[in-house]
Amino acid sequence: MKEENMIITPWEVKGTIDYDKIIKDFGLSLIDEKLYKKLGKCMGNNLFLRRRIFFVHRDLDFILKELEKGNKFYLYNGRGPSGHTHLGHLITFLFAKQLQKAFDVKYLIQLTDDEKFLFKDDLSLEDVEKFTYENALDIIALGFDFERTKIISDLKYAKTMYKQALRVAKKLTFSTARAVFGFTNDTNVGSIFFTSMQSVPAFIESIKQKKKIPCLIPHAIDQDPHFRVARDVLPKLGYYKPASIQCKFLPGLGKGGKMSASEPDTAIFTIDTPKDIERKVMNAFTGGKDTEEEQKKLGGEPEICPVYQYYYFLFEEDDEKLKKRHDDCKKGKILCGECKKELAKRIKKFLAEHQKKREKAKKVIEKFMLED
Amino acid sequence: MKEENMIITPWEVKGTIDYDKIIKDFGLSLIDEKLYKKLGKCMGNNLFLRRRIFFVHRDLDFILKELEKGNKFYLYNGRGPSGHTHLGHLITFLFAKQLQKAFDVKYLIQLTDDEKFLFKDDLSLEDVEKFTYENALDIIALGFDFERTKIISDLKYAKTMYKQALRVAKKLTFSTARAVFGFTNDTNVGSIFFTSMQSVPAFIESIKQKKKIPCLIPHAIDQDPHFRVARDVLPKLGYYKPASIQCKFLPGLGKGGKMSASEPDTAIFTIDTPKDIERKVMNAFTGGKDTEEEQKKLGGEPEICPVYQYYYFLFEEDDEKLKKRHDDCKKGKILCGECKKELAKRIKKFLAEHQKKREKAKKVIEKFMLED
Repeated sequence: MKEENMIITPWEVKGTIDYDKIIKDFGLSLIDEKLYKKLGKCMGNNLFLRRRIFFVHRDLDFILKELEKGNKFYLYNGRGPSGHTHLGHLITFLFAKQLQKAFDVKYLIQLTDDEKFLFKDDLSLEDVEKFTYENALDIIALGFDFERTKIISDLKYAKTMYKQALRVAKKLTFSTARAVFGFTNDTNVGSIFFTSMQSVPAFIESIKQKKKIPCLIPHAIDQDPHFRVARDVLPKLGYYKPASIQCKFLPGLGKGGKMSASEPDTAIFTIDTPKDIERKVMNAFTGGKDTEEEQKKLGGEPEICPVYQYYYFLFEEDDEKLKKRHDDCKKGKILCGECKKELAKRIKKFLAEHQKKREKAKKVIEKFMLED
Repeated sequence: MKEENMIITPWEVKGTIDYDKIIKDFGLSLIDEKLYKKLGKCMGNNLFLRRRIFFVHRDLDFILKELEKGNKFYLYNGRGPSGHTHLGHLITFLFAKQLQKAFDVKYLIQLTDDEKFLFKDDLSLEDVEKFTYENALDIIALGFDFERTKIISDLKYAKTMYKQALRVAKKLTFSTARAVFGFTNDTNVGSIFFTSMQSVPAFIESIKQKKKIPCLIPHAIDQDPHFRVARDVLPKLGYYKPASIQCKFLPGLGKGGKMSASEPDTAIFTIDTPKDIERKVMNAFTGGKDTEEEQKKLGGEPEICPVYQYYYFLFEEDDEKLKKRHDDCKKGKILCGECKKELAKRIKKFLAEHQKKREKAKKVIEKFMLED
């Protein structure tokens, strides 16, 4: 999808995100109150749900109905290992962890190293293999158990993956792939094939367990095109359409847009040092005024402020405190400097813990990886 | 390439084959007398060479020059396991065996089960896996040793193959693939990717041995488009262009065209019973006249006769005896019935032996297969 300032594909997100337009263009369903309540029964007062960070879906109602019938789903999502993990990447994994806990289900995580090699000119196989390892550490550090949670590297699990991807590929014409992803004559033939690999984890549990198992994919909204293809093809192979629950992007620390690994100073990576964090947060774009005087007089604009969004998405669990921060900002009772300082403190605390767990993950990573 | 009656692509060969046109359109080089002599020094008085069954090449002179410098090549070819092996399929393997013996080189055989699954609507993964096994038996039965000869199933060796194929795929645009293979909007995305897999054995030895090793591919002329692509891409990855020596098709027993697995009564399969062979040969189209009287008076036309071609390609080693058969036919001194009866006898003898060796191959097949 390309729209003046907004570009949103599985490989590029740029410009000011117009979620209403995406929902309409992609044909997504908003999660309605009834569905939120139903989810809430199992998940409790979940931050990502009550703040509408996960806000649209496909067939989530089907997943819950099957569950009631005793047909348990499994979870699947993943990430393209084109660089180090940043805070924005953690959201789908954190939410999947909460879903897994609430529903006691199996969870597959796909690291699409093949995709990133194919789509990024400057990445070698060695690069994507390295980032697969690094990204897996971040996921494990969030606190999964290797009994119910498995990580797939497309390259390391290719014997299993390629064979199943062929079944999808055989049912997917070039013209469909082009229409969905906007391929051109210059697109390489691997990129054209790739979505077949991304669809495999959405039915591989059905193969392993030799029965139809529903699959729920918690993912960021830019990945929807892949699963639109999967929803088209999988029923032709005898599986359920994968369902999804989709989230908004944590904004970058620059002006507008997604946090982007390609602009390293607008993203906070899980391996960043306290100094990095301090610098990036303190240099962030905000919704504040140019001077202290103006700020105190006119107030700030939290609705356009990425710093506020970090509290909203990840760093203020307490709704009342969040509201106070919002209102105080608008009234000019809080200055950007303070607000950033507090955020930097919280991020540093979170990442110090995370980095310890990340180190420990090195000892167990092999237990998580599916390998042929 | 599509030309009135002639269709020749890696997936379809139909109509009367115009080799001159193919050579010109594909840009192939005829093997000249100097090259034949040079090959003959190592291969002796080889039937496939002296009868010009292998007749065109790419960079064969390069292969021989590198050999003189002490840079030994390896052999690679293969087959798409879409059905049982027929006599026409054996030619490239038999010639590779002779090349291997003459030059004492390693030989890789690729069974493109993935290709056949992708390109043939009616074939399942189970079908191509079965034919991979069956075809491998036929190859092993020709008398290879598993020390120097390895068989690749793309599916079974996918972990190794897919990773390397991605490197090729990244350098190959859709427009190039479409121009070479004639893909349309309806082509499935797996078929578009596939040639990347076929190029891998042409450089995999260079990876394993960590130095540039020349690769010679003895193959039937219809496979040239794949290796044209490989010759374009491999130098970009730091490897030699693969060289080739290419052969004509053993004709089918029907009127004109290649022996085709899709028309089972025009092809003699390695698993055919003596009764099958008898029936197929005795029902073959020939270059003979309608009646015995006419034949005796006007003589036959060996140049359009598939029965004669079977002697020429595989079942008459002695050039003088072949010439006598040719001349006797033209003079009407031999009738089609006799000629067919004798051919059926020779094929039955050959296949009775082959089938015994094929049974024995079942015990060693695992030693030949490369598997991840």
